[in-house]
Amino acid sequence: MRLSRFFLPILKENPKEAEIVSHRLMLRAGMIRQEAAGIYAWLPLGFRVLKKIEQIVREEQDRSGAIEVLMPTLQLADLWRESGRYDAYGPEMLRIADRHKRELLYGPTNEEMITEIFRAYVKSYKNLPLNLYHIQWKFRDEQRPRFGVMRGREFLMKDAYSFDLNEGAARVAYNKMFVAYLRTFARMGLKAIPMRAETGPIGGDLSHEFIVLAETGESGVFINRDVLDLPVPGEDVDYDGDLTPIIKQWTSVYAATEDVHDAARFEREVPADKRVNTRGIEVGQIFYFGTKYSEPMKALVAGPDGVDVPIHGGSYGVGVSRLLGAIIEACHDDAGIKWPEAVAPFRVSILNLKQGDAAVDAACEKLYAELTAKGVDVLYDDTDQRAGAKFAAADLIGIPWQIMIGPKGLADGKVEIKRRSDGARETMSPADAVARLVG
Amino acid sequence: MRLSRFFLPILKENPKEAEIVSHRLMLRAGMIRQEAAGIYAWLPLGFRVLKKIEQIVREEQDRSGAIEVLMPTLQLADLWRESGRYDAYGPEMLRIADRHKRELLYGPTNEEMITEIFRAYVKSYKNLPLNLYHIQWKFRDEQRPRFGVMRGREFLMKDAYSFDLNEGAARVAYNKMFVAYLRTFARMGLKAIPMRAETGPIGGDLSHEFIVLAETGESGVFINRDVLDLPVPGEDVDYDGDLTPIIKQWTSVYAATEDVHDAARFEREVPADKRVNTRGIEVGQIFYFGTKYSEPMKALVAGPDGVDVPIHGGSYGVGVSRLLGAIIEACHDDAGIKWPEAVAPFRVSILNLKQGDAAVDAACEKLYAELTAKGVDVLYDDTDQRAGAKFAAADLIGIPWQIMIGPKGLADGKVEIKRRSDGARETMSPADAVARLVG
Repeated sequence: MRLSRFFLPILKENPKEAEIVSHRLMLRAGMIRQEAAGIYAWLPLGFRVLKKIEQIVREEQDRSGAIEVLMPTLQLADLWRESGRYDAYGPEMLRIADRHKRELLYGPTNEEMITEIFRAYVKSYKNLPLNLYHIQWKFRDEQRPRFGVMRGREFLMKDAYSFDLNEGAARVAYNKMFVAYLRTFARMGLKAIPMRAETGPIGGDLSHEFIVLAETGESGVFINRDVLDLPVPGEDVDYDGDLTPIIKQWTSVYAATEDVHDAARFEREVPADKRVNTRGIEVGQIFYFGTKYSEPMKALVAGPDGVDVPIHGGSYGVGVSRLLGAIIEACHDDAGIKWPEAVAPFRVSILNLKQGDAAVDAACEKLYAELTAKGVDVLYDDTDQRAGAKFAAADLIGIPWQIMIGPKGLADGKVEIKRRSDGARETMSPADAVARLVG
Repeated sequence: MRLSRFFLPILKENPKEAEIVSHRLMLRAGMIRQEAAGIYAWLPLGFRVLKKIEQIVREEQDRSGAIEVLMPTLQLADLWRESGRYDAYGPEMLRIADRHKRELLYGPTNEEMITEIFRAYVKSYKNLPLNLYHIQWKFRDEQRPRFGVMRGREFLMKDAYSFDLNEGAARVAYNKMFVAYLRTFARMGLKAIPMRAETGPIGGDLSHEFIVLAETGESGVFINRDVLDLPVPGEDVDYDGDLTPIIKQWTSVYAATEDVHDAARFEREVPADKRVNTRGIEVGQIFYFGTKYSEPMKALVAGPDGVDVPIHGGSYGVGVSRLLGAIIEACHDDAGIKWPEAVAPFRVSILNLKQGDAAVDAACEKLYAELTAKGVDVLYDDTDQRAGAKFAAADLIGIPWQIMIGPKGLADGKVEIKRRSDGARETMSPADAVARLVG
């Protein structure tokens, strides 16, 4: 992509409304624009990252055997009356009447709707296990939206719903999502720690939050430092096999949010030099809630004995749009964002340090063509900004690799490569730069 | 994908509420489920087709130089007051109040919001041309939703918005979208004919609808049969070059909806044996509306002379979810859907005609593994249904290629391949089947 044809409205000033660094950097880097309180438009740079994150979430859901669907944003109020949550949900639910005065709502989550779909079609245990997920915009009418996409009102969530014959099978489904989440966040370059959690309005008695450590996080956490070094399952993990050793390994090391923190156990189990008390950002949460929805909503299947029983369910959320904020909170410096490669909007940016110089232009064009032909996502800064402004913009938007091409280096047949994560620089020929940055 | 692990709830009965064939087939093939009037959930098979269509639309928008963003579904009412459309839009607009009694609406289209984004950042003609698009759910509160996804209330639309300094430049932008639309629909296996159209509530004085011919279409059309044979631009079309010869070629042959039909001209210009009067389904519409939004909303840029002028705009819609219905209307027979390959939910389905027979199971597994390894999207019917039910289901869901494997053929080292589009059958070795179906 040529920057001259892209739409990257970088702000020179720090926006006053931004209280945390990720919100400030997303506004400054031209990733989002607020259209109403807690409601954002995704500008091209932000949109590209959102899609990268969404795709990683999708691939890991698919790998675990979950099947993708897409439920609508609007739901019938009557559906929520069946579960009893229409009255229980409170002012965070956006309630709507259509032209015929029919009561709708903008879905904050989809337990009811997916249960309605399930019960319409599935009648026998033979069609289980089943895990259906979707990635769709949700709305929660927060009293005080803040922190940009970290606590928006309209937000993108992946939510999966498992259906099983009994608690044992439902725990197998829960464990699959547990492992899928470990992999999902690790692929994005995050250390997200699963922590035992309260279940809140979703219900049930078993839940884990996945929390990224960050000083600016919304909740206090207590962990044993060892949890940071636990291995994440590889892509060859066998989801049909026994996952309990992985779950045991991850749940036996102390990690808890302040809501459920057990100070006595913490001091008893964790050596003093391994105790960490910091803050964290929740990026996902998984729930096992048994028959909380299937009983009132009559989602029954015939078991092997022919008797109808309510299914045992769980739900599993990932905050897709919120993850952009979480990743930036974890990956930035004073100059801007440092995208992990897997979610970067582009892998390489080419900075033409003397636009209009025939030799430099030609070298940039050649490099751009070669990298693009090899499938590398490149942002080519072909604008007539001065070099200093290009350096600053490239650091701000955080593309993992910068290739700087100017007349002086080029006279020696060299370009400079800078790695954004640590600022390491190297000088090499354009051909070596291509070889280095492919793949 | 193994069918035993997929979620494909096929209906045996014809649903009574479906008035047209595409609606009936989408319900029967387990592609969609109605959650409220005109509001559908996309089940796995339907979701896969929706994503294929969305991706073709995206690729052709990108190829033409348009840049993807994503605007939220909810918008502030005040934004629409600026253009005057808040009062003008009528009961099709879903109006919402949030917990703080702030007036919102569920966007039926995005001219106002994109103009707000544009004016916030772009101040000079030097940043033009610019064409921003998004693919997002919209809501129009139809008085009487019907025909399934063809006239739903919550629907997926691609809408692009171009910004140019003057009418001449805006017409260049319009022509790019015209060509992109020719390519988009052709890639989906559709003949979509551009026809001069009225502009309606979007405004302006230049518009074309892209219409797929189908007996069940909502509008009558009159065309010169020659328009069906016009060449569609290839993927090497130069969007930076002069596109007017392509536009002239497509607009000089008579094609008009009944709204703007000129009977005298039709009879004067079109030889009697080339006159076709049939019906059609609108799948896209493009508009040039000049300064209709930029003037009231003060979207101004400084021209080369330094004077601020309102930009000239156009908007360009594709009915992404509606396209599923349109494609099925154009591609089906009595047995079910016949997906064009480019949008098929899977390319190949393997029918195991004797599940449980060790040799047949092994041959199916081998074929499934080989095709999957070569990147072919396969649905493997490994259920214990009888062969007749598998044949019927495969025809209903319309995968382009069926491979049938049974004990009798296998004893001779043969499998049977059936092409869904014309029912042509061939017998060959499994290795030849793989070779035939890869790529």
